[in-house]
Amino acid sequence: MTLQKPSIPKGTRDFLPSEMVKRTYIFDSIRKVFKKYGYLPIETPAMENLDTLLGKYGDEGDKLLFKILNSGDFLKNLNKDKLRDSNKVTSRIAEKGLRYDLTVPFARFVVQNRNDITLPFKRYQMQTVWRADKPQRGRYREFFQCDADVIGSDSLLNEVELIQIIDEVFTALGINVTIKLNNRKILAGIVERLGEEENFNKITGIIDKLDKIGIDNVDKELQSIGLNESKTKELKGFVSANILEKESDSKIKYLHEWLTGSQTGKKGIEEMRELLNFLEFIDIKNTVEIDLALARGLNYYTGTITEVKADNVKIGSICGGGRYDDLTGIFGLPGISGVGISFGADRIYDVMEQLKQFPENVVYSTQLLFVNFGIKEAGYCLKLVQKLREKGIPAEVYPDTAKMKKQMSYANSRGIPYVALAGENEMKVGKVTLKNMNTGDQSLISFEELLEIIAHENPDRN
Amino acid sequence: MTLQKPSIPKGTRDFLPSEMVKRTYIFDSIRKVFKKYGYLPIETPAMENLDTLLGKYGDEGDKLLFKILNSGDFLKNLNKDKLRDSNKVTSRIAEKGLRYDLTVPFARFVVQNRNDITLPFKRYQMQTVWRADKPQRGRYREFFQCDADVIGSDSLLNEVELIQIIDEVFTALGINVTIKLNNRKILAGIVERLGEEENFNKITGIIDKLDKIGIDNVDKELQSIGLNESKTKELKGFVSANILEKESDSKIKYLHEWLTGSQTGKKGIEEMRELLNFLEFIDIKNTVEIDLALARGLNYYTGTITEVKADNVKIGSICGGGRYDDLTGIFGLPGISGVGISFGADRIYDVMEQLKQFPENVVYSTQLLFVNFGIKEAGYCLKLVQKLREKGIPAEVYPDTAKMKKQMSYANSRGIPYVALAGENEMKVGKVTLKNMNTGDQSLISFEELLEIIAHENPDRN
Repeated sequence: MTLQKPSIPKGTRDFLPSEMVKRTYIFDSIRKVFKKYGYLPIETPAMENLDTLLGKYGDEGDKLLFKILNSGDFLKNLNKDKLRDSNKVTSRIAEKGLRYDLTVPFARFVVQNRNDITLPFKRYQMQTVWRADKPQRGRYREFFQCDADVIGSDSLLNEVELIQIIDEVFTALGINVTIKLNNRKILAGIVERLGEEENFNKITGIIDKLDKIGIDNVDKELQSIGLNESKTKELKGFVSANILEKESDSKIKYLHEWLTGSQTGKKGIEEMRELLNFLEFIDIKNTVEIDLALARGLNYYTGTITEVKADNVKIGSICGGGRYDDLTGIFGLPGISGVGISFGADRIYDVMEQLKQFPENVVYSTQLLFVNFGIKEAGYCLKLVQKLREKGIPAEVYPDTAKMKKQMSYANSRGIPYVALAGENEMKVGKVTLKNMNTGDQSLISFEELLEIIAHENPDRN
Repeated sequence: MTLQKPSIPKGTRDFLPSEMVKRTYIFDSIRKVFKKYGYLPIETPAMENLDTLLGKYGDEGDKLLFKILNSGDFLKNLNKDKLRDSNKVTSRIAEKGLRYDLTVPFARFVVQNRNDITLPFKRYQMQTVWRADKPQRGRYREFFQCDADVIGSDSLLNEVELIQIIDEVFTALGINVTIKLNNRKILAGIVERLGEEENFNKITGIIDKLDKIGIDNVDKELQSIGLNESKTKELKGFVSANILEKESDSKIKYLHEWLTGSQTGKKGIEEMRELLNFLEFIDIKNTVEIDLALARGLNYYTGTITEVKADNVKIGSICGGGRYDDLTGIFGLPGISGVGISFGADRIYDVMEQLKQFPENVVYSTQLLFVNFGIKEAGYCLKLVQKLREKGIPAEVYPDTAKMKKQMSYANSRGIPYVALAGENEMKVGKVTLKNMNTGDQSLISFEELLEIIAHENPDRN
């Protein structure tokens, strides 16, 4: 075998223990809130049939799917003349792809398992997704999504609940956020009023970039797709002025009048009003604001849409979602409305690092290390360490009879607070020497005394 | 868009909430033990470079790897004449593959991250693996492994610790098991004494099947690879008589004498003796037995090997592992010994179902559902439900103003024990009607009284 320099595919990552405990802290915080709101866990396979995935994320999305080569002799039934065009060949040699998000697999899940679930179905799902995107800072090819969706109910109470979940998760994590809301029906109404229905996707795509490219460039891009000056001006008037919660009433009233001609637009306004009305019954700790420039890229959204930005940290959105009216239709179950949100665990991690919001005690560690003096002594320690573990206290015997310095340095690098020494002398009197690694103090004590000291520092174990 | 009948790739599975809670129960039980023994969590990417994976699992394993098609125009630099042979093409159009187990990625991880970890390094890893195996009952193409490994120490105390972990995990899960032990050095010694070194892999492969094919077929197969009658008889004498813990001393003594000529064999016996000696210091609740027919398929094992079978359930091994002396060598870090075990979560699940060992309260659920009488009433309930959640009690408002019967049947199918009704009358007097879904009793009470009743039944929340 030849020597290999170890590496991993670009855009993927190993997670060290110190990173794992922090990631687990984020996942646990999110899961705890999902459960409290009555959401139930599901999981779907990493691989889906490409049929299920293709055409759901736009042309760009199709390109970003990781495709899995068919097993066995995949060239057997292939016409060799066709082997000039990668695109055409792909569908013949790859029938499966890796999950691109959790929403489309969920829609597929609902249809496939419809006899085993009760509607409305509230599910959460926390799994990895893969996208063959160009890797860059904060963007990975393998990343983690934490989704909550309700399917089978078109009540706006679901939107309210999801906003509460967002608010509660980020409060628990210690991140101040702004929760931006909009409604795709309002956007549709505005575009309809302008008489530009056929340009809906283009226009919303442009105004969605307001944050990144600024109002002047939005202006230019709108003109470049053929909008005249008066239309551009009118559109800009809406989207550049974010409607803050406090003044929402008058803005909404104006918008409502302006949209009189559009049934869809009026419906959007009514939904937004009802949502804001519900929100008044509850405490929301973070800022909620209506942002008419918010459009979201995915074409399956049909109602309320949301995006969450961390205050004081320059990073993209860390959570987003919306209502989709017919995602299950393509799989044979039409007329079922759903709404969901997705937390981007990897970006949340970066935000928490930047804000230093990880609690210090998040690093889980062994509480006590027994030094290894030899086979006979190790046998004695085996008994003692078993008793500690029975009490739920993480403890170890150093496996090798190594030099004391090496064993101590292991304890140090692992952050183990106590080291126990049980050599010939200790064994003779049935005691152990306990060393506090922080203070350096050490004393000869009975095993019962040792248990008491360690248990006292670990009241919540077991 | 055309209508699609939803399906998932063969050998993969969706997990419903009822299955998820049981799986989580298994994972949590295993993780808790790993932590108690001082093992630290890591994760590696689902995709590895094929270089990392190929050649580590034998020819058969190479075939079972799921390979990922390169992104973009993967045919661009390919000589079209070569497109007749799937095997040759694969390496040109696929550079990545899905994880086949957690051991090889761990070896790669240790070498790649060697500056960020302290040896001996005790890690646990609980992730999905993928194999393009023929799907059958109890064998999936996507399944879950829970591994614990120690790398950078050749002390047999690590083997002892892993046996303790196996014992403790299955005790916690309520499964009685037999932990079978052997040592590849003993097998090497036996084969050496027979003068059949060049047939080591074949011979061990045959005797490893003893369980499945019986002693007569082992006999035939051994003869078919050219072993004469006396060698076959001698070999059978060792492997067919399982050496039980109780009588291990005399058997080991005999084996030791017989293996006098083989340095490797004697080393294996000594390791086995030291291991059994250590085990006498601790309590092991399950059966430990030496099984000289145990060989394990993976060629990287070099010392102690183990396999765990559930007593009273007909199913393959549910946990296995062993020591490997130079797995990191291929990645450029030679001379580092490791030992590990792997729990097969999916088979453990099947065993627990068969033995009915899942605790009943494993199904996590919402404690209280507020019936939805309309927009005004829902607003009132929103406030109340928020207070319940602040106490850590999972609670929901039914999202739609549906018929009472539908809302009640939702509560029933979800197993929600209490339903609260807050209609116009209740709102007028500032109370709610609480209905116990098990007894059918209902009473008009204050919200404080309600809180007390529900909190009383959920003392451990928050």
